[in-house]
Amino acid sequence: MPRYRLLIEYHGGPFQGWQKLPDVPTVQGALEEAAAKLDGAPVDIYGAGRTDSGVHATGQVAHMDLRIDRRDKVADAMNFHLRPHPIAVLKAERVADDFHARFNATQRHYRYIVINRRADLSLDRGLAWRVPSKLDADAMHAAAQAFVGTHDFSTFRDTDCQALTPVKTLKEFTVSRYGERVEFTCRAQSFIHRQVRSMVGSLVDVGRGRQPVGWIADILAQADRSACGPVAPAEGLYLEKVDYAADS
Amino acid sequence: MPRYRLLIEYHGGPFQGWQKLPDVPTVQGALEEAAAKLDGAPVDIYGAGRTDSGVHATGQVAHMDLRIDRRDKVADAMNFHLRPHPIAVLKAERVADDFHARFNATQRHYRYIVINRRADLSLDRGLAWRVPSKLDADAMHAAAQAFVGTHDFSTFRDTDCQALTPVKTLKEFTVSRYGERVEFTCRAQSFIHRQVRSMVGSLVDVGRGRQPVGWIADILAQADRSACGPVAPAEGLYLEKVDYAADS
Repeated sequence: MPRYRLLIEYHGGPFQGWQKLPDVPTVQGALEEAAAKLDGAPVDIYGAGRTDSGVHATGQVAHMDLRIDRRDKVADAMNFHLRPHPIAVLKAERVADDFHARFNATQRHYRYIVINRRADLSLDRGLAWRVPSKLDADAMHAAAQAFVGTHDFSTFRDTDCQALTPVKTLKEFTVSRYGERVEFTCRAQSFIHRQVRSMVGSLVDVGRGRQPVGWIADILAQADRSACGPVAPAEGLYLEKVDYAADS
Repeated sequence: MPRYRLLIEYHGGPFQGWQKLPDVPTVQGALEEAAAKLDGAPVDIYGAGRTDSGVHATGQVAHMDLRIDRRDKVADAMNFHLRPHPIAVLKAERVADDFHARFNATQRHYRYIVINRRADLSLDRGLAWRVPSKLDADAMHAAAQAFVGTHDFSTFRDTDCQALTPVKTLKEFTVSRYGERVEFTCRAQSFIHRQVRSMVGSLVDVGRGRQPVGWIADILAQADRSACGPVAPAEGLYLEKVDYAADS
């Protein structure tokens, strides 16, 4: 059976996250339904990142096997069957039978968007976290450098996380301001549950001056969930890109 | 009565345009309702640009007179009363009693956003026009230079336009590509009805190769509405900025 790799964008708002669950709308569920219509038989779809309820993606990657090789028609056909869900298959390409979107991923990139202003959001509603207090992006960037490297991230790990270990290696964490927009970007081979939102929420406590810059390194060292700041809401988070060794 | 100048952002989707009309949701209507709650009496609000149904704004300007000087509390109070409308007052400041948002405006800036790709929109749904055929941004930019200067824009004027004259002076028109995003920006003291969407729609016919670059100058010279290309949809258009002599 021909295997396809899909590059997928979605608005997380209407979905209870990526992972298929009975009787609730999920991204994986919507994609499998569209693929089943396309292929005339049930299709399993495997994603690189199991994004949480409400989290968006601009570059999720998944793979699926179809019974029939539909060549370059797969993306258009998937998009046709996905309507009206806010999910778009940006690219679909034939890959080797042993390609696995999740297990072959070498790195995941996340972006978190804060709109730092007093006024409610209108155009960006549901697409960013509005923080009214003035944020110091430089202080947050400095504090975030404590995350880079290999650490026990227990402080930034949701209590229902099922990962085998809280030890992860963060390759990069940057915080940049563009006018009223503050963007947090980070990359690692993998993350634990709610790690990015926990890190961003704690950084925002530094940015608004509630905590000093060194506080992030302190709470990281404690490796204790109760030391974490507030968890940033889902609507500002984007799974932006997934890397594979074969791509480079 | 103290006069306030408002800087306003809104999502045009739920509104039948800026201008107040009985029994339908409009941006001006929602703002006047919020201001009346704030001031305890009816308030008239005058906007710089009467954006069409579905058109967005990131920098609309309006003015209003309140009975009471509420100092720097006006933006927050307006936003409180505007909920849940996707309208945000970004700034409110006291201005001279003779400031008029519409008549004092020296220049309006519009931006039109096209997402040039085959896949349906998910995150940008309602916020851009998706054009599937590959567009040549350089060709559109070259063609658009015919618009710059003083011309009879009858070709690009909606049949229900009430402006006294079809002669307008365009100061600038640029077309730029950023990945799959193609942005059209233009500025003029004022525009006739549907002028920007008519110009963008015609340029897209050039961008997709249906018409040669020189066609834009040709149809402009005809000064005949029936020569115009298709009108671009409202959801890609943004009133981005309004300039006033006193600001510079």
